[in-house]
Amino acid sequence: MKVIGNPATINVLQQPTSYAWVEQAITNLDTILLDHAHCELKAASSAIHLMFRYPSKTKMVQELTKIAKEELEHFDQVNNWLEKRNIPMAPLNAPPYGAALKAQIRHQEPLRFLDSLLVSGLIEARSHERLGLLSTYCLEVDLAAFYSSLMSSEARHYGVYWRLADTYFARDIFMSRLQELALLESELLTNLYPQPRVHS
Amino acid sequence: MKVIGNPATINVLQQPTSYAWVEQAITNLDTILLDHAHCELKAASSAIHLMFRYPSKTKMVQELTKIAKEELEHFDQVNNWLEKRNIPMAPLNAPPYGAALKAQIRHQEPLRFLDSLLVSGLIEARSHERLGLLSTYCLEVDLAAFYSSLMSSEARHYGVYWRLADTYFARDIFMSRLQELALLESELLTNLYPQPRVHS
Ligand SMILES: [Fe+2]
Ligand SMILES: [Fe+2]
Ligand SMILES: [Fe+2]
Ligand SMILES: [Fe+2]
Repeated sequence: MKVIGNPATINVLQQPTSYAWVEQAITNLDTILLDHAHCELKAASSAIHLMFRYPSKTKMVQELTKIAKEELEHFDQVNNWLEKRNIPMAPLNAPPYGAALKAQIRHQEPLRFLDSLLVSGLIEARSHERLGLLSTYCLEVDLAAFYSSLMSSEARHYGVYWRLADTYFARDIFMSRLQELALLESELLTNLYPQPRVHS
Repeated sequence: MKVIGNPATINVLQQPTSYAWVEQAITNLDTILLDHAHCELKAASSAIHLMFRYPSKTKMVQELTKIAKEELEHFDQVNNWLEKRNIPMAPLNAPPYGAALKAQIRHQEPLRFLDSLLVSGLIEARSHERLGLLSTYCLEVDLAAFYSSLMSSEARHYGVYWRLADTYFARDIFMSRLQELALLESELLTNLYPQPRVHS
């Protein structure tokens, strides 16, 4: 893990996404868009969930309110793409990624709070990386531009989650736990989930 | 219940708020603001919950995305008031209102969908009424103006919930169930909850 002073610029992902994922995603863009809509709504919902649980963490509440609003904005934009492409709504089963990461959140406070911030940050970091890959490899110019437009938000979002972890926890505690979770996050993605998903 | 053609203009509340509530609220504005922050976050969260549950109701998803964003905006504004007034965060127990209304939601579809829309609409309608009372009776000019500024959004929100019910259900089914729920909603408020709350 490269550590470059400011936690917002930590290059945290332990393994880059495989080309197998890129191929799977690019050949199934409609399904990826459907799943992507779900991910944006989930991101808003997770931020709100943290605000309900930790209402007295004022700085966190301020930052997550902004994130939740942006995720809803992204959700709306992805839904416009679904409409434009006439993609019918279909229930998608979730890949194990999100649940497996959530299962790592320890139950006792303040560990639960720390782990929640780090898991959210890792998901944002991976989303940022994958949106970047989609914008690079997608052959449809407009859609590639859309993916590119989302990347900077997701980068900002993981920066917020690291800075919050850094605000509420000692740097060494936060960094060593992040290292553990980041290793696991990459492991979760070593075997490609058979169905195309943002986090397959 | 006065019915004026367009369901958005239905005057649905069966009983107006008692003056006892106004007195309780005006003499406990700090607690009301704290509870209000929670209500705004809850409103955003309920809208998101409906979008997760009914992702294929495209019109509903579009409308509720806008509502959820606005509720987060309100939440942020109320939090600014809490900060400005140095109101310390404190856990507040919820009055029975929300849970009692939710308990009326039938379990079988599409009744669950109908009831969910109507319950959300009723809560918005009551919030609109009570914010109006706060803006009328609050002696602090700035805070009164803030309450007044929120009223039009909440009126728009209940209009959206009625129009969605009207979109997805036959008018007579929707209206008769609304009548039942509205009667209950008013009954729930006949005995003032001993602690000051937006929905005490
Ligand atoms: Fe996003
Ligand atoms: Fe994000
Ligand atoms: Fe609101
Ligand atoms: Fe509202």
